[in-house]
Amino acid sequence: MRAAVYTGDPTLIVEDRDRVPPGPGEVEIEVAYAGICGTDLHIRHGAMDHRVPARAVLGHESSGRIASVGEGVTNRQVGDPVTVMPLRWCGICAACRAGHTHVCQTLKVIGVDIPGAMQGSWTVPEDVVVGLPADLPLDVAALVEPTAVAVHDVRRSGLAAGEKAVVVGGGPIGVLIARVAQAQGSEVVLLELDPHRQATAEGLGLTVVDPSRTDVAAYVADWTSGAGVPVSFEVSGAPAGVRTATDVLGVRGAMVVVAIHSEPRLVDLNQVFLRELSVLGTRVYTRDDFEYAVRLVADRQVPAKELISRVVPLSGASAAFDALESGGGVMKVLIDCQDAS
Amino acid sequence: MRAAVYTGDPTLIVEDRDRVPPGPGEVEIEVAYAGICGTDLHIRHGAMDHRVPARAVLGHESSGRIASVGEGVTNRQVGDPVTVMPLRWCGICAACRAGHTHVCQTLKVIGVDIPGAMQGSWTVPEDVVVGLPADLPLDVAALVEPTAVAVHDVRRSGLAAGEKAVVVGGGPIGVLIARVAQAQGSEVVLLELDPHRQATAEGLGLTVVDPSRTDVAAYVADWTSGAGVPVSFEVSGAPAGVRTATDVLGVRGAMVVVAIHSEPRLVDLNQVFLRELSVLGTRVYTRDDFEYAVRLVADRQVPAKELISRVVPLSGASAAFDALESGGGVMKVLIDCQDAS
Ligand SMILES: [Zn+2]
Ligand SMILES: [Zn+2]
Repeated sequence: MRAAVYTGDPTLIVEDRDRVPPGPGEVEIEVAYAGICGTDLHIRHGAMDHRVPARAVLGHESSGRIASVGEGVTNRQVGDPVTVMPLRWCGICAACRAGHTHVCQTLKVIGVDIPGAMQGSWTVPEDVVVGLPADLPLDVAALVEPTAVAVHDVRRSGLAAGEKAVVVGGGPIGVLIARVAQAQGSEVVLLELDPHRQATAEGLGLTVVDPSRTDVAAYVADWTSGAGVPVSFEVSGAPAGVRTATDVLGVRGAMVVVAIHSEPRLVDLNQVFLRELSVLGTRVYTRDDFEYAVRLVADRQVPAKELISRVVPLSGASAAFDALESGGGVMKVLIDCQDAS
Repeated sequence: MRAAVYTGDPTLIVEDRDRVPPGPGEVEIEVAYAGICGTDLHIRHGAMDHRVPARAVLGHESSGRIASVGEGVTNRQVGDPVTVMPLRWCGICAACRAGHTHVCQTLKVIGVDIPGAMQGSWTVPEDVVVGLPADLPLDVAALVEPTAVAVHDVRRSGLAAGEKAVVVGGGPIGVLIARVAQAQGSEVVLLELDPHRQATAEGLGLTVVDPSRTDVAAYVADWTSGAGVPVSFEVSGAPAGVRTATDVLGVRGAMVVVAIHSEPRLVDLNQVFLRELSVLGTRVYTRDDFEYAVRLVADRQVPAKELISRVVPLSGASAAFDALESGGGVMKVLIDCQDAS
């Protein structure tokens, strides 16, 4: 079978590899689709070389079917449609003992620290496998993982039905957060600078504001009768996004930091003081979040299908990474791994 | 009567003023003591000129006795020992309607926006008055207000009995936070650079670590078996304090931002992400916090008396401000207003 392999900044090659037969408690997945995420782009440029092993196979957004099962595996059958919740935790650290396994002090992410989904055959422990409804198309199912991120972000925010939220950044995660929040009965405004992403989000029925054309503070003050919003999501990763996500909050409001900020950012702690704001970190998801994401995708409550801009073969992975980095015009790109097994 | 009056950066004068007879629903307080707070130092240097009225009387930490009462005041008697919770809220904004009157969108602080306690006779609305036990010395009672700040900070943090916390900064508020946390059964380490403040805090039985001599990260890792603490209090106001208060937190830990940071600060949002940290703003107190602070001071559960470094007459106010700004050797300074009536 073939795999997309990271061999050092900025190279992604496709190479032949032997299948890994599933050991006891493991399953082999014939991968259908693997999504490309911002983290994968960072990895390709060496930003996570301290974690990523040599000649790593990337990919933590996936869908596929069980190809074979190892000894003792009774919950999964060959042919079952599945996705993977790509987390491995230790079970014994303080975080795990407190029940926060998703922020385990030695958390490993499959597709980052451990070989991922961008290959024809993928062998993983059975307990990371999440079953999919039989009628869910596998391309759409590859969006379950980013949807689970959005589910976790909204849950972490404490946003309630009927409350208003601002989402700063209209990429796939921003759009999914907006729709997850709407699905629970909240009102959302999405801020986005890129015209293509604006159009995509508007096409999905979202209210989109361009912060380069609209005075966001005045807009939100008007929208909330001067109160500000209880929740903002910082999904842009930009310093200006942090400022905006702080400015729009009302008293006791919470900014959820969704984007990865690799450098420390200036945060207006005077505003944090004056309005008793919260800045909340959020990371990946729990099993509950993941299984709820399967339902949201299957029930078409989030626009998983609509976010797929392009599907490329494994041989086109490197070019697809390039296209995503050049921005404009692309939301989610999937790698079709069905010819790579 | 006489009053300490701010007349513009950096001048504080003492001038004669007419007493203000209490109107309906007001009381006149014969002020005993007024504490000098960091905010007062900032005000004297013009940092709050946008809020402070011309020829303002400062002082929001106070104790005294009722001197006279206005029409309709039945809850207070002449001679009653009292302090003042120096907040005025609107009652109609979104914050007030949500029950968060202490972060009212148009909150006024008595002693900042409205004439304060540094005068012989002080007329205030009766509903800001808080009664004191008859046997509580009035100098000690002037520490109720900063104790209420500490009570609110600890409550806001969510710190539980038996849990560990790091307090960054060992001035009066830092020491009070540490002792309020201990009073509820938490374990505390206080970080402080200044030798005099270190000695004062150690003399009060606190565990003090000098971050210039000790590797704080290693110390906290050892103290918590590698878990990190669930709560840190940033009371230093310094950029390095923000870093330290972030570094020491364990998974899902909360940094409470107590100090005023007049400029935006660099916050390591990557740590906030990786461990799902919270950064929590905290401002003043509620009536519950204030009344609990009276009990803590009266029961000697916080070292109010021990924090009083010096008591000066009203005529010495300006010199006392200078001494506090030059740092070293001083914790809380009170102005004795009893000869100013
Ligand atoms: Zn763990
Ligand atoms: Zn109000």
